[in-house]
Amino acid sequence: MSLTRVHNFAVSLDGFGTGEGQNAADHFGHAGDRLHQWMFATRWWEPGGSGGVDDAFVRQYDRGIGAEIMGAGKFGHPGWHEDPDWKGAWGPNPPFHTPVFVLTRHTRPPIEMEGGTTFHFIDASPAEALATAREAAGGEDVRVGGGATTLREFLAAGLIDHLHVAVVPILLGRGVRLWDGLEGLERDYRVETVSAPSGVTHLTFTRANA
Amino acid sequence: MSLTRVHNFAVSLDGFGTGEGQNAADHFGHAGDRLHQWMFATRWWEPGGSGGVDDAFVRQYDRGIGAEIMGAGKFGHPGWHEDPDWKGAWGPNPPFHTPVFVLTRHTRPPIEMEGGTTFHFIDASPAEALATAREAAGGEDVRVGGGATTLREFLAAGLIDHLHVAVVPILLGRGVRLWDGLEGLERDYRVETVSAPSGVTHLTFTRANA
Repeated sequence: MSLTRVHNFAVSLDGFGTGEGQNAADHFGHAGDRLHQWMFATRWWEPGGSGGVDDAFVRQYDRGIGAEIMGAGKFGHPGWHEDPDWKGAWGPNPPFHTPVFVLTRHTRPPIEMEGGTTFHFIDASPAEALATAREAAGGEDVRVGGGATTLREFLAAGLIDHLHVAVVPILLGRGVRLWDGLEGLERDYRVETVSAPSGVTHLTFTRANA
Repeated sequence: MSLTRVHNFAVSLDGFGTGEGQNAADHFGHAGDRLHQWMFATRWWEPGGSGGVDDAFVRQYDRGIGAEIMGAGKFGHPGWHEDPDWKGAWGPNPPFHTPVFVLTRHTRPPIEMEGGTTFHFIDASPAEALATAREAAGGEDVRVGGGATTLREFLAAGLIDHLHVAVVPILLGRGVRLWDGLEGLERDYRVETVSAPSGVTHLTFTRANA
């Protein structure tokens, strides 16, 4: 069974998945890299890093994934669609290595990158996008990569089978919230929490029948 | 040195310290008792309960406390001030056993209860209320008991030395938020997180110089 999964989605204690003021230099706005320092401190990111619970979670990211779906706000800062040369912020060899479906009203031809990543631009509902990505995944799982707005829409539509959120103990105060409008979400899932020595708390929501 | 402390303040994953629709029967509105089940499962609450990390935290509640400050919304449901006989929802022997300062514009004479609790009703700013409670505490610490609005005001004013919040892995979706408007709060504190087998994550913010 092909599942729909979310990994390493970081939010602040007050629930923001990104800060305010996103632009080409600051992909997470005023949050800077504070939501993701725990990932950079693992040995998945660089040798000599921590090899504990943060590392174990972060390595689930690409295991068995055949396609990713991301929102337009993850693919680029506001206005990227006006730049015909914009290919995302990940360089020539992005870390996806699968087809990636970017949800946008500003569709354009696919962009083939090095390392197996191809960006496809589709104007579709979450359910439609998932059907498309599922087919492209060839029996493997589909990852929903965020950002917060996109992830919230997929959660609200009941489309996520496995959700991993890393809560970082900082208060951003402003930005885009993940949890809004999801009252009672936990009822459909088995929920586990574990805090790491880094201060991050890992939450997993796993659908009971998945 | 007399500190200002907060203990066992429970919030949902989406940051609500109480639900919507508070009334005389439902003190936490639609949240019911879901924010506090972890406390009821400890052996502090009843014999045979759990004796682990939840229990260790919950027992810090009254250690060295000489007075409590609470908001009007904790003392009673909206409109309690129109009931001259309202004495809080804790019965004849409330669990405070110290002077308790209720912040309200609707002041009334003090009410002496069994067991050492006396409710005082004061119309004061957080700093003024703290000075009053500090004096009444006779050298011991002052606890700020909530609700969410009151606690947020004390945090914004920089008046809290030790904050213990229990994050319960449910999504309430609506109610009163604790974390709003507190951007960067963590910078003034040493922050620790630990998750319990109950699923609750305990956060402590301890002021570096306290």
